[in-house]
Amino acid sequence: MEDNEKENVFIIGLGLIGGSLALDIKKANAAAVIYGIDHSDAHLEEALQLGIIDRKAGFEALPEADWVILAIPVDKMVSVLPEILDIVKEDAVVLDVGSTKEQICKAVENHPKRRNFIATHPIAGTEFSGPSAAQEKLFEGKTNIICEVEKTAFTIQEKALQLFKKLKMRIRYMDPKSHDKHIAYVSHLSHISSFMLGKTVIEEEKNERDIFDMAGSGFESTVRLAKSSPAMWTPIFQQNKEMVLKSLSEYIDNLNNFKELLVTEDFGSVYAEMEQTNKIKEILKGIHLRKEISYGE
Amino acid sequence: MEDNEKENVFIIGLGLIGGSLALDIKKANAAAVIYGIDHSDAHLEEALQLGIIDRKAGFEALPEADWVILAIPVDKMVSVLPEILDIVKEDAVVLDVGSTKEQICKAVENHPKRRNFIATHPIAGTEFSGPSAAQEKLFEGKTNIICEVEKTAFTIQEKALQLFKKLKMRIRYMDPKSHDKHIAYVSHLSHISSFMLGKTVIEEEKNERDIFDMAGSGFESTVRLAKSSPAMWTPIFQQNKEMVLKSLSEYIDNLNNFKELLVTEDFGSVYAEMEQTNKIKEILKGIHLRKEISYGE
Repeated sequence: MEDNEKENVFIIGLGLIGGSLALDIKKANAAAVIYGIDHSDAHLEEALQLGIIDRKAGFEALPEADWVILAIPVDKMVSVLPEILDIVKEDAVVLDVGSTKEQICKAVENHPKRRNFIATHPIAGTEFSGPSAAQEKLFEGKTNIICEVEKTAFTIQEKALQLFKKLKMRIRYMDPKSHDKHIAYVSHLSHISSFMLGKTVIEEEKNERDIFDMAGSGFESTVRLAKSSPAMWTPIFQQNKEMVLKSLSEYIDNLNNFKELLVTEDFGSVYAEMEQTNKIKEILKGIHLRKEISYGE
Repeated sequence: MEDNEKENVFIIGLGLIGGSLALDIKKANAAAVIYGIDHSDAHLEEALQLGIIDRKAGFEALPEADWVILAIPVDKMVSVLPEILDIVKEDAVVLDVGSTKEQICKAVENHPKRRNFIATHPIAGTEFSGPSAAQEKLFEGKTNIICEVEKTAFTIQEKALQLFKKLKMRIRYMDPKSHDKHIAYVSHLSHISSFMLGKTVIEEEKNERDIFDMAGSGFESTVRLAKSSPAMWTPIFQQNKEMVLKSLSEYIDNLNNFKELLVTEDFGSVYAEMEQTNKIKEILKGIHLRKEISYGE
């Protein structure tokens, strides 16, 4: 994406990620015209009012697109992506930002225009959704996983990487299977843990009034992801079912083990479990450091 | 605590909470002399260097205390608190800030100086520990639970409440049993959920390199509490074992139920579970609102 080059950028899905990308792209290239496509007319109208998009559009306009960015739930992605590739022009960049990669890549593996497509997962977000959740610089310093990059045409890779560089993202390459496996642990599992924690406490409050009144920042932090959108997350769990189940089973095993230590009053081991897990401090610090070093890489 | 009244304030335990209280008390009353007591001489020295305390002290100096604030692990609290009450002067305020209340209150229920003691739980903190974790205004806008206040002398209540007002804390009264039950859900369970999440992902990384490189803010948020101090948390789980086990069992049941929905591919119910839990958004918003309204109450 060059500065001041007139480009038609179509964003499909104007939620948190699609909307935030629209804002940053407009900043990166003032001459870009941002077209919005969304199944919700209210969202489209809101995105227009908020200045996130320049124009509303429909799928029939996609042959004019220089860029098509797909930011919709991953089940919709799988069905819509081949149809988009069918109609875009020869040099269009088509990219998705889905939280699963295997089924999305599989959906277009034999498509004649596979080389126009670049599969990405920008690991960025908040617990909020819809156009009003869009924010500038959401992607700055964040990691973007690109999958099976060798299947994307070199010119398309180049354009996409230039955009990610403007957004100050850090790039990592990975095969779709590894992506889905690893992301189950560091993202999908966190969401389940948070949703079920929220559920457990809400159920308890049915019997005991005002317990939320005692909630501090620790509870808020662990339960934050339980605000996330079910429309986005249900298809993610569905597509990544196997790996999500694997990580969830291991998590439940660890919880059961911890419970058993409490039941048997083995507090020496309770202490040891926590002490060993404390190394998450150093791990997270290391990530921040590495991310700072590799800005704009 | 009056402005510019010379008072001897003894803080026992100079970690995050003790240290932060010391900083705020010094701000609230410049004439207060802050004495530090800690089993770690390194911590004492550090607190002195950081200006958190004015002087190092030992237990033998406690008869001179106007205030004694106990901010040590809750198992130590139970054994030390009666000994402190034994030696303080008639009008000294003795308060604890422990995360459990039943056993602490029980430890002094028949003590001749029970009326000098006020049992509190300021629901404030971060995942860090030690004197360097101390920060000003940590308690501003936070809830402080006071237990069995009727057992505290009215003059002592008054002094303590004046201090909490200066710290801009919001007061709630509760019996110790209810406190321990509710806090298991909104605090203790969050810590276990976070520790075991951290453990699960660390174990996976043993086999799969660099998965933490993919971690985003969601993972960081849910795993933040796994940085907490085992020395502080082991005795909390021990003292509140029964209620922690109850909440943990319910949490595991909910996770198993969610897992079963994935196994049976009942994604309609997966969606419904998340949608129902989304109401945590409104609940947390409501808490913030109430806290803003009742500042300095």
